Parts: sequence; C-alpha cells; structure tokens
Amino acid sequence: MSEASRVTMSATLAADEAIARRRAAGESVLSMASGEIGLPVHPGLRERLAAAAGLGSYGPVAGSPELREAAAGYWSRRGLATTPDQVVCGPGSKPMLFGLLLAVGGDVVIPLPSWVSYAAQAGLIGVRHFPVPTLPGQGGVPDPDLLRETVTAARAAGHDPRSVIVTLPDNPTGTIAAPETVRRFAEAARELDLVVISDEIYCDLVYDPAATPAVSPAVFAPERTVVTTGLTKNLAIGGWRTGVARLPAGATGQRLGERLVGVASQIWSSPAAPVQAAAAYAFAEPDEIVEHIAASRRLHERVAHAMAERFAAAGAVLEPVVATCYLYPDFEPLRAHLAEVHGVRTGAGLAGLLVERYGVGLLPASAFGEPEESLRLRVATSRLYGDTEERCQAALRADDPLALDWVRASLDRVEEVLADLTAGAAVPIAV
Amino acid sequence: MSEASRVTMSATLAADEAIARRRAAGESVLSMASGEIGLPVHPGLRERLAAAAGLGSYGPVAGSPELREAAAGYWSRRGLATTPDQVVCGPGSKPMLFGLLLAVGGDVVIPLPSWVSYAAQAGLIGVRHFPVPTLPGQGGVPDPDLLRETVTAARAAGHDPRSVIVTLPDNPTGTIAAPETVRRFAEAARELDLVVISDEIYCDLVYDPAATPAVSPAVFAPERTVVTTGLTKNLAIGGWRTGVARLPAGATGQRLGERLVGVASQIWSSPAAPVQAAAAYAFAEPDEIVEHIAASRRLHERVAHAMAERFAAAGAVLEPVVATCYLYPDFEPLRAHLAEVHGVRTGAGLAGLLVERYGVGLLPASAFGEPEESLRLRVATSRLYGDTEERCQAALRADDPLALDWVRASLDRVEEVLADLTAGAAVPIAV
Repeated sequence: MSEASRVTMSATLAADEAIARRRAAGESVLSMASGEIGLPVHPGLRERLAAAAGLGSYGPVAGSPELREAAAGYWSRRGLATTPDQVVCGPGSKPMLFGLLLAVGGDVVIPLPSWVSYAAQAGLIGVRHFPVPTLPGQGGVPDPDLLRETVTAARAAGHDPRSVIVTLPDNPTGTIAAPETVRRFAEAARELDLVVISDEIYCDLVYDPAATPAVSPAVFAPERTVVTTGLTKNLAIGGWRTGVARLPAGATGQRLGERLVGVASQIWSSPAAPVQAAAAYAFAEPDEIVEHIAASRRLHERVAHAMAERFAAAGAVLEPVVATCYLYPDFEPLRAHLAEVHGVRTGAGLAGLLVERYGVGLLPASAFGEPEESLRLRVATSRLYGDTEERCQAALRADDPLALDWVRASLDRVEEVLADLTAGAAVPIAV
Repeated sequence: MSEASRVTMSATLAADEAIARRRAAGESVLSMASGEIGLPVHPGLRERLAAAAGLGSYGPVAGSPELREAAAGYWSRRGLATTPDQVVCGPGSKPMLFGLLLAVGGDVVIPLPSWVSYAAQAGLIGVRHFPVPTLPGQGGVPDPDLLRETVTAARAAGHDPRSVIVTLPDNPTGTIAAPETVRRFAEAARELDLVVISDEIYCDLVYDPAATPAVSPAVFAPERTVVTTGLTKNLAIGGWRTGVARLPAGATGQRLGERLVGVASQIWSSPAAPVQAAAAYAFAEPDEIVEHIAASRRLHERVAHAMAERFAAAGAVLEPVVATCYLYPDFEPLRAHLAEVHGVRTGAGLAGLLVERYGVGLLPASAFGEPEESLRLRVATSRLYGDTEERCQAALRADDPLALDWVRASLDRVEEVLADLTAGAAVPIAV
C-alpha cells in the first residue's frame, strides 16, 4: 500500500452525526438513517458493568475466559457447537471484521447491496472487493452462480479473492437468504476455497425463526466459516463496543484464529475489561436478557411492518421484511414523477430531498454499493421507539406499540411526507 | 497488499499471557516482561464508570464533547494550547497509532530501538518501516542526521516515507531525548516534510521534569506533529482502552484529522461510551487524580532505580533511568561469560534462560527491533508493587516502598538470580 489508502467516513455514522447536529440546532428531524438501536441499556448489564469497574488490566487478547465461554454457549444453543478456544472477542463486531480481512489476507467478495463498512474496510488496507448481487428477496448472500463467475474471472485476471462476506439476516434489506441458498452458496465457497465470513449481528432479530430461519453457512461449510456477532443490535449497546468471532474447529480455524489474535494484539490489545464482564453475563442469556431481547424483537417487527406499509402505499416496491429493523423500499415506479416534479434522479438526490425539505433522514442505496441512479433507500426504524427512557420502556412493554402517541406520530409523519412527495404521481399502488 | 500481511503477536502481550499461564500452573514467576501497570483503578474512575453505565449509544466517532474538551485542557496545561476540535479519541493509544498510519499513508520511520507494535502495525498493512538509531542515552527520537540520510536514501530507492514516530519519554530505555535533540529532529522532519507522530503515553511518568523535561516535537514543529497519549500508564487502566490524539492546528491538521476520523469510523466506530465518561473526568485532572499519578510516579522511580542498581552491580551497562517504569540493561560486558557458562549468545537466549531457569520474565532487545545478538533486555518494574489491592495501596502510600516485604523480595530475588547468572564472571563492576 504505497498510495494513500482510500478513507471514507462511515455513511451511517456520518448521517447520525449530521442528524444530531440538526437536532441540536433546534430542527425537527425524523432519524431513520442509522441502524443504531434507540433503546435503554438493560439494568442487568448496567449492574455488571458497574460491578466490574475495578478491572483495569488487559487480560487475554482473545478475551476473558468467562466471555469466551459464554459466547461459546450462545452459539452452541443456536445449533453451532462451539468450544471457548474457538472464540475471539474484540471491541465491536466492526473491528472483528476488519481484523479478519487482515488475518485472511487477499481480496474479498461482498454481497451487493451490503453494509457500508465492508467495502470501506477493504479500501483502507488497499485490497480489492468484488461485489456479487444477491438473489431477489434474499439479501446478504451472494448468488452462488454469480459468485463462481466473479471469483473465476477475478483469478483469471490475476486478483486474489480469498474470502467472502455474508450478512445473515441482512442489512440493508431486512430479508434472510433461504437455507437452500445458503447451502448452495457454501458449496460454491468450498469449491472456490474461500473463507466465509458470516456477519450474524442480527441473528437475534429474526421475527419468526420457524417461518424464516437464518441458517448460518457454518452449518454447511463448518471447516471454512467464521461467524461474527455482538450485542449492538439485540441489546442496544453499540456504544459499549463488544464483538465476538467464532472460528472454525480444526487446524484451519486454529491457524486463522492465531492470526486474528495476532492482529488484535497489534491493533486493539483487548476489549474493555469491564465491558467484557457485562458481555459475559449477556451471552450467558439469563431469563431477563432473553425476555428483553424478545420484547425488542417484537417492537422492531411491529414498527418495521407498519413503516413498510406506508412505503408500499406510497408506491415504492419492497420485499417482505422478516428480520432486523430495516426496510429497503425502491422508488423505481416513481422515477418519472420524482424527476419531473422534484428534479430527483439519484438515490442521493432523493435522500437529500427528504432530509432537506422534510427533515427525514435515510440512506440512499449507493451507500450500500448500488449504482447512483438506484432509487432504493434504507429505512431504519430503530430510533422511533421514544426519545426518553420512559417512552422506550413503554414501547417495549406495549401490546400495541403502534398505539403509542410518539410511535404513531413518526408513522403519520412518514405517511404525510410520502404523500406530499408522490402527490399527483400515477403509479400502480402496491397495497 | 495482495500477499498475506505479516502478523506477529505483540511480544509484550504474548509474554504476559505466557507468564499468567505459568503462574496459573503454580510456578513462581517474577513478571517483568510487560509494561502493564499493576496498580488498582482509582475509586474516582470506578465511580464515573459505574455512573455512566446507562450510556449505550456510540456518540461521535471522534469522542464525546466532554472527553475532547478534557483532553484539550490536559494538553493546554502542559504547554500545548489545544482546542477540542484538534482532539480525536479512540479505544486505546495503540489503535490511534494504527489509525494514524492509515490516515497519513506511505511508509514510516521509527526509532531503533522502539516499542514492539510500531513495526508490527506497519507490517500488518504492508507498508515499510525504516528504523533509525537514537542517540546514546536519548531513546525514542531518531538521530536527526541519520533521519536525513535514511529518508533521502529511501526516497532515492523509490520508497515513500511520510511519517516518523517518536516515543517521548521512551520505551524501552526509560530515557528522554534532550530538548535540543528534539528541536534538531523537528527541523529535520520539516525539511523532509514528514508527519511526526509523537507517542507521549509516558508523559506523566517523568521523575524530575525540571532536570529532564520531555519537550514534545509539537513545540518545535507544531504544524506537522500529532501527539498521542492515554490513561494506560499514568492511571493503570490499560484494560479500559482509552487513547487520544492531538492533531496540529491549521489546514494540514484538519485534513489529517478528518482522515483519522474516517479510519476510526470504519474500524472501531468510537471508544466505549462509559469509559469515555470516566476518561473525561481523569483528563480534567481533579486533585485526587493528580495526587494519585504523583504517588505512582514516585513508586516507579524508587523501584526502577533500585532495580537498575542491581543490574549495574551485576555488570550490565545501562543509561540513567529518568522516566517510565523501564530499564534497558546491556549484558554485553558479560558476553564471553554468558556464552561459555550458559551457552547464551543472543538476547532471546538470555531472556529464555532467565524465564526457564529462574522464572524471571523479561523481553530481549530483538523485540524492540535490535539485532538478535544484542544482549540488552527490557526490564519493567510495573508489576512488582503488590499482588493484592491492599499491598498496592500500601506501596503507593509508603515513604519507602523498598522497605515493604514484597517489593524487597522481588529486588532480592533479582539480585540473587543475577549473582547466579554471573557467578565467576570477570567483568568491570559498574557500581
């Protein structure tokens, strides 16, 4: 890397900060750009963190024995038998993914669309990323046939793809690749000898696991799949920075784990010790934590579905949302109207109009690797649950969160904005 | 970076873990390999962390406004006027240094000897590092004349050095480059148009700032110097992971700061929020924190000096230790004896003998970039203050910590080990 590396600010974090500045300046904004979960820290976590405030030492680079054991149990209860020595912990799922890119080496294949930081991390260290489209309604997992084509062509051109990232369940689409797709994908990855990096940060936010299960590629290609997750999405403690990686059992996994720990030792040393103590408690999944996560999952489901209805009613096209707190509506049917009435021809133009004229913050599909002209937007509902701890608690407890004033107000505001945006448009209404 | 990056485990953290395993196995070990500070977390920090346990959000990538303001005040009180917008915070001083390598781009010059992770971080991202020797007794700052020679030759050979790292005060030598040396160094860096990255993590551990001040290169080359520090060494909370960087004022600094924040947003998002709250309290330096740091500094000084006397008495050569908790004795005068009696011909061999035969953990100079045959060892006294919180508190309070049983026992053990190691050697005794 002799050239200056490509440095871009994380689109989600940048949007977050821009919205916070607008709000501080007294403007009314509806923040649906970042997927940060706007829910309070569970009291059990607060107590464990406070009780661990005396821990000032680094401890092992791979994480404390307690945390590694708890994370192993967490995966084992989800059908992925795991021993603590397969677990490496770090200060967030994002650094784990970055560390894995360095530990595996070579170029990387990513899904299209996919989370803003995969491509950006590759750019930082000067490696190529090869985006491979996903199947319709099955975001997060590259189409197995296109994966073969892309990797074969890349190698023929002298490039060196060695890993492929998947997101399961998916950000930005809120969908889940079908188990059969994951199986075929895993087979292709094995044929191509790729390490699979499965970002499963949303694994606890599948609305109905019986109907739409998220089956990890670690089930189908256990010898080559690294799974990462954290507590940012299920327990809303992104600001605590906890990530864990599950390495494959066996010799390959062990070598990769050693390299990952080496990378960790040179970049971040260890996750914050008091946070590790609280994270060990959470990954052990006591009843109160399981119930809290279930309540937050129900809340995401209700609000994301209600929001999806608004976008569909306005004429945008979107896949059924089955997990996460995201929807990914496509305004393609409204392209002519948006161009004629608003002069909008790109996703960034549409997102810009929504934030400038209406104070509604969203991200354009280009932030997820899609072409500039795509009129898809990623909508995150995770900040709409309340602006005080009391309101958030009420939303978590409510049988019908949509009946709460502040939740309804956000939905009504979106409906009103979309009505204004699309007024006079002749589009097939999807509802 | 199409090849697998060079991954090496941090020598200090690896030594730490090896010693912890030996101790867990019931072996008696004297741990002087890692520079982790074995002192308890100050109660004020514990309280602030516990009080901030409700903070689950990321907050700004560059750190909370409170922490940035506190860090700006910290530097301003040390003669480097700083505004909060010059400050970027991260999860440790180590990630800040890594982020700066990526943000500056290009190859890097490092002092020889220098801390284990500078070269390793460069290796991870596939950039070259050019080691430049320091002046005798003035570790941490490359000899200005050799810096010119090295950079000129590197550029002539088609390489691209763009930054130079200094350590002030120095690890591993426990010395401080003279202000005049720093001035000449800063002049050379300006001529060569290098960004100076000044690692000042030990800045609060100068024993006598009137006699041996540590003057930052930011004084002499303010337009190009980035200063990094943290709370790992002065407050013994390495395990909390707090680092801060001070960017230059002005346009160059602003551009570099924006790139650093971009890198941070893609690798670690933000430092842990509850830790930031406690760190803001510490960088504001209330009286109880200032006094605690002063007590720990006195303790380091007494024990490091007493330890240095033991090594000198055994025939090793070493520079006067004026800061940190490190000494860097050279067993060169004992080379013949070590080879004949013990079959030891390298620093690693000497360190290996000391840990295997005597249970004394130290690091060889090769971990700091020196040749394998160098017989220098880095000795850290920071773990000798007590193995319980009570003993550590007693050590911090003691007028004469050397009179405490457990401190004396460690010093006596080292004396005994060195006597055995050098028994029969004919060397000029330095004391």
